[in-house]
Amino acid sequence: MNFLEKRIISEGRVLGDDILKVDSFLNHQIDIAFMKEVGQEFKNRFSDCEVTKILTVEASGIAIGCVTSQFFNDCPVVFAKKGHAKNMSDDAYHASLHSYTRGTDFVISVSKKYIGKNDKVLIVDDFLANGEALKALMSIVSQAGGELVGCAIVIEKAYQPGGELIRSQGVRVESLARVKSMSVKNGIEFCE
Amino acid sequence: MNFLEKRIISEGRVLGDDILKVDSFLNHQIDIAFMKEVGQEFKNRFSDCEVTKILTVEASGIAIGCVTSQFFNDCPVVFAKKGHAKNMSDDAYHASLHSYTRGTDFVISVSKKYIGKNDKVLIVDDFLANGEALKALMSIVSQAGGELVGCAIVIEKAYQPGGELIRSQGVRVESLARVKSMSVKNGIEFCE
Repeated sequence: MNFLEKRIISEGRVLGDDILKVDSFLNHQIDIAFMKEVGQEFKNRFSDCEVTKILTVEASGIAIGCVTSQFFNDCPVVFAKKGHAKNMSDDAYHASLHSYTRGTDFVISVSKKYIGKNDKVLIVDDFLANGEALKALMSIVSQAGGELVGCAIVIEKAYQPGGELIRSQGVRVESLARVKSMSVKNGIEFCE
Repeated sequence: MNFLEKRIISEGRVLGDDILKVDSFLNHQIDIAFMKEVGQEFKNRFSDCEVTKILTVEASGIAIGCVTSQFFNDCPVVFAKKGHAKNMSDDAYHASLHSYTRGTDFVISVSKKYIGKNDKVLIVDDFLANGEALKALMSIVSQAGGELVGCAIVIEKAYQPGGELIRSQGVRVESLARVKSMSVKNGIEFCE
């Protein structure tokens, strides 16, 4: 097991058959030393890419993006905003997605000023399950005419279809932990 | 002018008489090298405090917290969540506040596990205007029995009452830029 898998086993909590709570270190309280290990590992995996911008979505992705950036020459981090923010001008790219966690559809937006056709974009996020957030972020990169170098994910639920779907489109997806199965009864099993 | 005031003058945009858009470097696209300067300056101002935890509120505060933490021995960052998240247990501290930007009241929540009576808490946020977010975060620290060492703010609208109100309670508030007045017509003036 790698550092992340060990941490998930020791602190993660499985609720029902589909919720993995990792809020002690990843998405409510953030362990910054741990997050640096995540950023370093993303750099190891995307070291051949000249990333000019990191794109993520609020809220948890911001922490990952801001620490990871420091391993990519402090490149700017852009986070998509959820909903049509009052403070955001109409000069923005939008993409809609379905949240299975919340059971609702919503829109994410990125100002056109902050992603452009000369950008090599690394998308980062905490979870990959059905791939809704990634597909929406990929749509925004595409609308902007930028180059998507890949997707860097902390935890992938490999038993859900998002990862396979996105990889089948030729997109490079690197997940630091891939959950093969999980349940309250049997705990968490990772892919080999 | 300090580094932040210069940046605000060169890239900030005043909309109406009360909105200062700094989304090119602070709260939509994040300039990580700049954010490190912010973190270093917060450390300079709170160097006498043994901060054990940084508390902020999603979303923009997360970036500030995660970079600032690295100047405070990588202490954990906790971000309050807006609304009663489906994934958050009832075992949480709550505080309500009014958003003047959105014109609505809402609740922020922090799990009881992540702030405790042994914590010395530094609150960080991007803006201080009416002080609603700070008061809510201070309430959470108080409910948890933690020690509030102070509030580290990037931009204070000093012509609004929040800063004076909170300082009058004996709380240490450090703002890196204090806007004395701003308008589309006359631009931005900082306090001495």
